[in-house]
This record gives sequence, structure tokens and C-alpha cells, in this order.
Amino acid sequence: MANLKIPIILVNYKTYSEATGKKAVKLSKIAEDVSMETGVNVSVAPQLADIASVCDAVSIPVFAQHIDPIFPGSSTGHVLLESVKEAGAIGTLINHSERRLKLCDIEAIVARTRESNMISVVCTNNAAVSEAAAALQPDIVSLEPPELIGTGIPVSKSKPEVVTETVALVKHVNPDIVTLCGAGITKGDDVAAALKLGTMGVLVASGIVKAKDPRKVIMEFAEAINESLSDS
Amino acid sequence: MANLKIPIILVNYKTYSEATGKKAVKLSKIAEDVSMETGVNVSVAPQLADIASVCDAVSIPVFAQHIDPIFPGSSTGHVLLESVKEAGAIGTLINHSERRLKLCDIEAIVARTRESNMISVVCTNNAAVSEAAAALQPDIVSLEPPELIGTGIPVSKSKPEVVTETVALVKHVNPDIVTLCGAGITKGDDVAAALKLGTMGVLVASGIVKAKDPRKVIMEFAEAINESLSDS
Amino acid sequence: MANLKIPIILVNYKTYSEATGKKAVKLSKIAEDVSMETGVNVSVAPQLADIASVCDAVSIPVFAQHIDPIFPGSSTGHVLLESVKEAGAIGTLINHSERRLKLCDIEAIVARTRESNMISVVCTNNAAVSEAAAALQPDIVSLEPPELIGTGIPVSKSKPEVVTETVALVKHVNPDIVTLCGAGITKGDDVAAALKLGTMGVLVASGIVKAKDPRKVIMEFAEAINESLSDS
Amino acid sequence: MANLKIPIILVNYKTYSEATGKKAVKLSKIAEDVSMETGVNVSVAPQLADIASVCDAVSIPVFAQHIDPIFPGSSTGHVLLESVKEAGAIGTLINHSERRLKLCDIEAIVARTRESNMISVVCTNNAAVSEAAAALQPDIVSLEPPELIGTGIPVSKSKPEVVTETVALVKHVNPDIVTLCGAGITKGDDVAAALKLGTMGVLVASGIVKAKDPRKVIMEFAEAINESLSDS
Repeated sequence: MANLKIPIILVNYKTYSEATGKKAVKLSKIAEDVSMETGVNVSVAPQLADIASVCDAVSIPVFAQHIDPIFPGSSTGHVLLESVKEAGAIGTLINHSERRLKLCDIEAIVARTRESNMISVVCTNNAAVSEAAAALQPDIVSLEPPELIGTGIPVSKSKPEVVTETVALVKHVNPDIVTLCGAGITKGDDVAAALKLGTMGVLVASGIVKAKDPRKVIMEFAEAINESLSDS
Repeated sequence: MANLKIPIILVNYKTYSEATGKKAVKLSKIAEDVSMETGVNVSVAPQLADIASVCDAVSIPVFAQHIDPIFPGSSTGHVLLESVKEAGAIGTLINHSERRLKLCDIEAIVARTRESNMISVVCTNNAAVSEAAAALQPDIVSLEPPELIGTGIPVSKSKPEVVTETVALVKHVNPDIVTLCGAGITKGDDVAAALKLGTMGVLVASGIVKAKDPRKVIMEFAEAINESLSDS
Repeated sequence: MANLKIPIILVNYKTYSEATGKKAVKLSKIAEDVSMETGVNVSVAPQLADIASVCDAVSIPVFAQHIDPIFPGSSTGHVLLESVKEAGAIGTLINHSERRLKLCDIEAIVARTRESNMISVVCTNNAAVSEAAAALQPDIVSLEPPELIGTGIPVSKSKPEVVTETVALVKHVNPDIVTLCGAGITKGDDVAAALKLGTMGVLVASGIVKAKDPRKVIMEFAEAINESLSDS
Repeated sequence: MANLKIPIILVNYKTYSEATGKKAVKLSKIAEDVSMETGVNVSVAPQLADIASVCDAVSIPVFAQHIDPIFPGSSTGHVLLESVKEAGAIGTLINHSERRLKLCDIEAIVARTRESNMISVVCTNNAAVSEAAAALQPDIVSLEPPELIGTGIPVSKSKPEVVTETVALVKHVNPDIVTLCGAGITKGDDVAAALKLGTMGVLVASGIVKAKDPRKVIMEFAEAINESLSDS
């Protein structure tokens, strides 16, 4: 994971209209602008069909939202690592709460990304699952309590003890694994709180994608990160 | 389905290395060449991440291999109709044997494609399932007995009675629905046999994608179609 | 389906505490009492682990809630037709809204039940899916719009046109297939309305299982059926 | 897990005809005989519909082959912990290779069993997945490389290093978790080898269920355990 700067703001475009097709490219350019201006890593995870055009348009890190535990061959309708890599993605979300996977498939996908020098971000729903995910040796574990996703109630403020426990358990398994958190993150304050709890950034979706002014929100997040760094 | 010329040779790229990324574009150009030369509809179904670049490069019909029964929103890692449509796809495979779907989801996807003027190709494994699929009113039903896929034993020669029964059942439900067949199709003869049984073309994958000379095989298929048309 | 008397009240015990273990047996005895008293077919679908003890205790028809599309062999944790049959079940629900199945699996299960002389009840969510299900030639199609399940808003009163269309489509495919409806059925009136729309009974769960006095509700349903029959 | 004696021979009946219905009861009585005669814990995992009758017939420990991550309520066709517990099961297999589960569901099921004083046996396919499973704090982790299941090539002899690594990783996470292994176990020697590698027993299916003389095989396994214990 030598090339991924942390802390990170990782923006999941989900299947939102506001981040589909040309709008995915436009939003990615905004993310890139803010990233260049602030020096903070703003990465994006567009839909599969948009990865290539986003990667053509920007130079910030681009992640897939999902890949399947398959090798090249007969897997119609599945997502091949080599395909998203050639399109320009440098990593992938795995096991997002809207795309939960079997344990053995998570292990197989993490192993695939490791061999292919892609960055693995395994999403988890609680501290116990985070520890289990860490045992698979991904690059990043991202805690997102599903009941908070899309609510605007920030995990970093409403469940700080779960974040702290997750950070500790993941670090205990392997101190090199980066922990992020997500769900309900909409303000710079929420990001600052996340860093204070020991995470190295946030996984965010509607808070940015569905914001009236996404640039303003990304900027607020990035500044919160820079302030946290200068405080510490 | 006013714009889709039949008979059709529909090439499923699956997740084959030979048809991923730049190779998907290259193979699509070959398909386009043969299509222009022979006047036969050669359509392609590349992987999701390749749809945009294939559509940029060629003007033959491009299909997705799969879409999910979702609307724009919170569906990380799923495939949104609007996304593949904006990338340039004009239709989608549904329920391929390597990506079987729930009955209610097939119905929802077919309804979604209908409202969005996209072409629906529902894959089926036998005559009874084909009749059920036809009841959902897709544009195309494509019979592919899974035990023959990738074998080189052509469905049109080894199971002609299943093809004939499928054509009859689908026509009985709705004479406007086009029936294709696939599995084991590797020669012009297999294509001719498929048309003789009442289908309007073939769904083919390894027979073309993994051929030593894909252009030659597509040409052979296209000529078989033209000969069948002139015979009748 | 020679042995199944219609109209039918089919009670789905789901995984309700009120109908688990000994309570499943107790409720089944109540169902049997009402059935004997009124002459109306009251059938029950308990959980898998309760089928044997329910079948030992009563002589009304007992259905499984689900079986898998498998044959005897290596399928740990799956439900084998032979297993529920030997336990005493005479049929099975298939594709309930809480256990949706792939189209090809529904076909395989219906074929399995047919060969084994078990009664197949395929659940569906709308008229198009009902027609597709009917094409698979099950004994019974049971329409249950999922948005109404457990609401107390009866399908037979709030969506009469969907019920009527379903009855017509199923009958058109095969007049021997029985159509039931379910969702929101809590009163005798709802049952009478269902019969008036052309169904031959109801699939019901919480309306009976979670009723304060299940006997009273089953009796009300049975009497509604007898009145409907004497009216016609 | 105070009540479960180790080492253990855990016999998975899968959906084998030889262990369905009355035959499940008969085989369980054989297992009980050998257990009483040798003093070795022989436990069985019959199909759901057979749990109650097996538990009525024998007093050896009985496990379910699977339970779902649900609470009492609206989950037609799913397996409720309370249901199998009332039928007499004292634990359950989880995530068997023929019934793989999502990571978050494994965690939820293990938590459910813990609260209900039932024994959790999480099946795994390799060392990394075993470590992840151990992080969820089940009572037992059972390693079964899927490629060896049903082959007669014993995991304890053909992949000793995977067994040893699994035992070490699980122990490192929590020394109280018992490790079993399975796949290809057909002889007393295979069982002895498994114990020598640090496991506390075997998970076995066809090796016993499909044996010409199951009593003889179980006896051989039990004697191998007693010899191993007296050697150490």
C-alpha cells in the first residue's frame, strides 16, 4: 500500500444518479481539485461502467465498489479484478453493507488483490467482524454500522466506543492495517472526531454525493483532516 | 426492439482474458468488420468496465452481461441500468447460467429494460423455464442447456428437440419474442442448424472468444446465416 | 393433487415463537379441530424441525415452508424433499417472499415435487410472475404482494384487480392450477372477498398465528368459505 | 461448552439417503452404542426434519447442520435457533463448505448461539479463514479443505501443515477454542494423525455414513482416539 497516502477521504458513489456517467466524472474532478488544493488524499469509488472514464479524467486514486472472487474464465456477469485494474482502479471495496460477501470469498478476494498489488478495503459492521476481517490481512478495514448509513448520525460521534474498540482490535491483529470508519459522516467535525478515535480517515457516500455543494463538503472534510494533523 | 436486426450473432465475452480491456475493444472491431462486410448483426456483451470503451470504438450493438433489479440509490457494488445505458449499452443479458437470478428479480429487470427502451435477453436452461421466461415478456429468450456450455457439443445438433420445443412454447406465449440458442456452438453448421430449428440466431462465447482466429469463426457464422436466409 | 380438498386455508407458521415447537403442535390441533367441525380444509406449514411432531399429532395436510432443488447427497444444511416427505409433509411452499428462489431452482423443485407426488405451492408477487410460475406447472400458485404481508390490509380488498388478473393468467396457462392469495388477510370478510375474485383459498400467517384467539379466526375463515360455497 | 466432552467424533449426515428419516435414527443409535462402549464422544448432525426424532431416540449430543441469523418472526423457510434447540439440538454447524455464509451472518449466528448456550462449530477452508473465524469466538473451528471432502484423501495426512498452522492460529486468537479437522477421513489412522497435529477430533461425513459397516468405522475412530489419549 506504499502509494496510498493517509489519512484518506474515500467517496463511495454507490448507484446514485448524482454520481453516474458524466456526473461521476464531474464529481471526480471536484474531488481531484480539492485534493490538489489541500494535499489531502481524496479517493473515489464510482460504478464499474464509469471506472475507465473517471480514470481517464483524473489522477486521484480510483477504487471499484466490488470485485468477485474469480479468475479469468467463464463467469458471465461477474466482476474480474483484471478488468477493473486495466480500467484504472488501484483497489476495491469488499463486503460493503450493501454487498455483503461470504467469509471464504472475502478471503479469496483479499488474497487476489494482494497478489495483484491492488488495495483492499474490507467493510465491516461491528468490532468482532472487524477483527475477523483484519485476520485476512487486507490493507484497510472500514467500519460502517449499517444502521447509521445514510442517516446523518455520525458513527464517530454516536458510537465512539465501537470505533475505538475496532481500531484497537485491528491494530492488535496487525498494526499495519489502516482503519477507516463511515456512516452518517456529513461534517468536518465528524471527520475530526473519526481521526481523534484513531482512524485514518472516512468512507463517505451520501454526505458528499448528495450534498448541495459537494466541493464545499469535501473541502470541509479535507480541512478537518489538515487541522487534525497539525494539532497532533 | 425496432432497432435490433435479426438474425443475430450475440457474442458473450464472459470474463475471458482474451476479451478483457483492450482485447475487448479489438475483438469488437473484428465483430464490426464482419458485420459490415456481411450485413449480419453481430452484437457483443463485454464486461461492465469495458462497455464504455467498446461503445466508443464500434457502432455494433453492445449488451451488458448483467444488470441488477435496482433503481438509482444506495446499492454499492450493484449494476444500475442507467449506468450501462449511459456507457452505451442498448440491452442486457439476464439470468445467464453463470449468473442465475431469482424469478422476481428477472421480472423486475425485464420491466426496467422495457420502460427504458433497452433490449432484454433472458437466458434459460430448458423448455419449461423458457416458457416461464417468455411470460415475463422480454424481447429475447436464449436457451442454453448449461451442461453443454463450453463443450463444443452444439445444442442445435445434440438437443434439437429441446430447441424446437422452446421455440414453440415461446411463440405460443408471444409470437413477437425472438428465440436464440447457445452452448457448444463453434461452427457455421451449428448456426445453420439453430436457424433451421426456428431460432433467430445464437448466443456464443468460447466458440468465438477463445478461437485461434475469431474473425474466421464470426465470418463462418455470418455466412451460415446469409445462406440460411437465401435458402428460405 | 387428487387428495387436496379445495378451497383451502393454508396457515404459514413462519418462524413465529407462537408457532414453534410444542406451540406448533398445539396450533395444529386447533386447526384440525376447526377443519373437522366445518369440513373446510385447514392446512399448516410449520418449521422444518416441527414437521414430524406436527404430523404425528394431527391428520390435516402439512406442508414444508421450503425445500431445496437437490437430490440425496452432499448438501449439508439444505432441505431434501425425501426428508420432509418422510417426516410427513404432503407438499411444500416454494419461493415465499421471505425465501425467494432462482427461476431455474423453482422449476427444478416443482419438477421434483411432481415426480414425488407432493403438492407444490409457488408463491408470487404480481400477475406477471404468477403467469411465469404457472408455466412451470405447479399445483398451486399463491399471489402475495410483499408490500401487504403482515399489514392487515387484505390483498383481496386493496388489490382486487391484481388478484383477478392473476386468476385469469394462471387459468389461461393451465385451468387445473389452483390460485390462492395472501397478505393482510385477517377477517372472514377478506377470505370471502378472495373467493369472490376467483381464488380457491388463502395463504395466511400472522392473521392466525399472532391472533389473540387463533381458533376464533380460523373458524371465521372457515365459515366464510362455507358461506361463499353455499352462495355460489 | 462445559458439557461437550473432547476429543469428539462429529458425524455430519448431510442429505445422504443412508442417514435420512428412520435411517438417521438407526445410525444415531449405532453412534450412541459405540460412544457408550468406548467412552468417546460421538456426536451427530442430522437433517433438520430428523433432529427431533434423533433426539428422542438417543442421548448423545445432536447438532443442527445450519441455522440462520434470524430471530423469531417473519422468516418463512429459514432455520430458527429456538426451533432446533427445542427439538433437542445442543449446537450447530455454521458455514459448512456446502452452505457457506456471509461473514456478518457467521458473526451473528455465533453470537446467537453464545447467548443461547448452544455450541457453535464454524467450518473453514484454510488457515487464514480459520483465524478470522476464531476472532468471532465460536466454541469450535473445524477446518475442511473443500477440495478433499468426500475424496478419501485425509486432510490430516495430505495437508498436515495446513492443520498445524490452523491449530496454531486459532490457539493464538483464543486458546479455549477447540480445533477439529475434516475431509477425507475414513480410517482410524487418519483420526490419530489429526490428533497428533493438535486437533481435538474430526468432522466426518461419507467416511461413516456411506461406509458398508458404519459401526465398525466409528469404533475404529473411537479406538484411535483412546489410543492417542493413552499415548500422550
